[in-house]
Amino acid sequence: MTNAQMLAHPPQERDFSLVYAEVQQFYAHQMQLFDSFEAEPWAGTFTENAVFDVPTLPAPVRGRAELAANVRRNRELQAKTGEQLRHWLGMLDVQRQANGTLRTRCYALVYMTPRGGESRVHRVCVMEDDLVLCRGRWRVSHRLVTRDDLA
Amino acid sequence: MTNAQMLAHPPQERDFSLVYAEVQQFYAHQMQLFDSFEAEPWAGTFTENAVFDVPTLPAPVRGRAELAANVRRNRELQAKTGEQLRHWLGMLDVQRQANGTLRTRCYALVYMTPRGGESRVHRVCVMEDDLVLCRGRWRVSHRLVTRDDLA
Amino acid sequence: MTNAQMLAHPPQERDFSLVYAEVQQFYAHQMQLFDSFEAEPWAGTFTENAVFDVPTLPAPVRGRAELAANVRRNRELQAKTGEQLRHWLGMLDVQRQANGTLRTRCYALVYMTPRGGESRVHRVCVMEDDLVLCRGRWRVSHRLVTRDDLA
Repeated sequence: MTNAQMLAHPPQERDFSLVYAEVQQFYAHQMQLFDSFEAEPWAGTFTENAVFDVPTLPAPVRGRAELAANVRRNRELQAKTGEQLRHWLGMLDVQRQANGTLRTRCYALVYMTPRGGESRVHRVCVMEDDLVLCRGRWRVSHRLVTRDDLA
Repeated sequence: MTNAQMLAHPPQERDFSLVYAEVQQFYAHQMQLFDSFEAEPWAGTFTENAVFDVPTLPAPVRGRAELAANVRRNRELQAKTGEQLRHWLGMLDVQRQANGTLRTRCYALVYMTPRGGESRVHRVCVMEDDLVLCRGRWRVSHRLVTRDDLA
Repeated sequence: MTNAQMLAHPPQERDFSLVYAEVQQFYAHQMQLFDSFEAEPWAGTFTENAVFDVPTLPAPVRGRAELAANVRRNRELQAKTGEQLRHWLGMLDVQRQANGTLRTRCYALVYMTPRGGESRVHRVCVMEDDLVLCRGRWRVSHRLVTRDDLA
């Protein structure tokens, strides 16, 4: 991220209220893209070399091409099972870092609904992100998700 | 909605942080009114001719009188079953429109707790609203709810 | 709370967007401290003589020493059962009072995950707080939690 890519309002001058609202909006949009299998738009919410470290994958993935491929695999899986997943975040703690990036820690829930069946809680997780401001938009540069059942 | 009904701060001049906080506060209040069976105050969070299109009703309802009647039916049902419902929204995506209205898309969960029994997830839904600013307050002019289990 | 302990920006002059973001951030941090058994930091999010009235305790507790002791008991219990609890808040209604304090009412969910087992909804509650601004930070002076299953 170069200076030229930064907004007129650099991160350090943003009000906390603006940063907190932007991050909530960012995550809402990002999770809806994920659950709708919008592979490329979702991958675009990460930086180009982002690291995505989640317990459902055998190893951390890096970069947008791998991220998008992961969403396409999810779409194929969903087409077979008919199970709709919904990813929710909550209890969002946003800590501004001296270099203008954000460190976030929040809870992540996954709800699952079989077609014609009963919805249920599928996973309870903790998500820790590094966010950077790229051309006026927040992007995830590093994500670590841990599952409560495997803790 | 006439110009005379608009706030000194019209929607276009509001900061995103203010709009996002207002909408969150609006929904929190609206859902609490609904779960407490406050029929008229809840209906008052919609515009006079609002359309409310949800899968639990046989057809979309229009206008505050029908909306309030729906809440009174819910209250009677709850008195019989003793089941307490709680409606939660999350992953709130707020998109400002050129005409000053808002288009929102979020997830909606319904939790159900029988008296003396175990709480559980009852429904997982997606909610899409049009919001307009009337005399300084956001109001729903159109709501569409879809259920994951019926998708 | 003396005037000297107040921020340069007293509560009445704060924008609603700032107050709403601060309260969300406050609760996110507070709930994460609670679920991580950080006894003293969590107790420090209450005022010195705060009253904490929750249905899982036989009587309301008062003050930070008792609050911290309660968290240490939770930690011991969790070490035995291996069950991870996560406390979530949602539908946060924030009402500013004339004296600069806040009155909040929100829903509170508790998710429980046994080690190696299936996550589930454990409790659905309503939480009502009084918040005061102490040396620039929000603190809970009174908390009342009610459980839907006992209502």
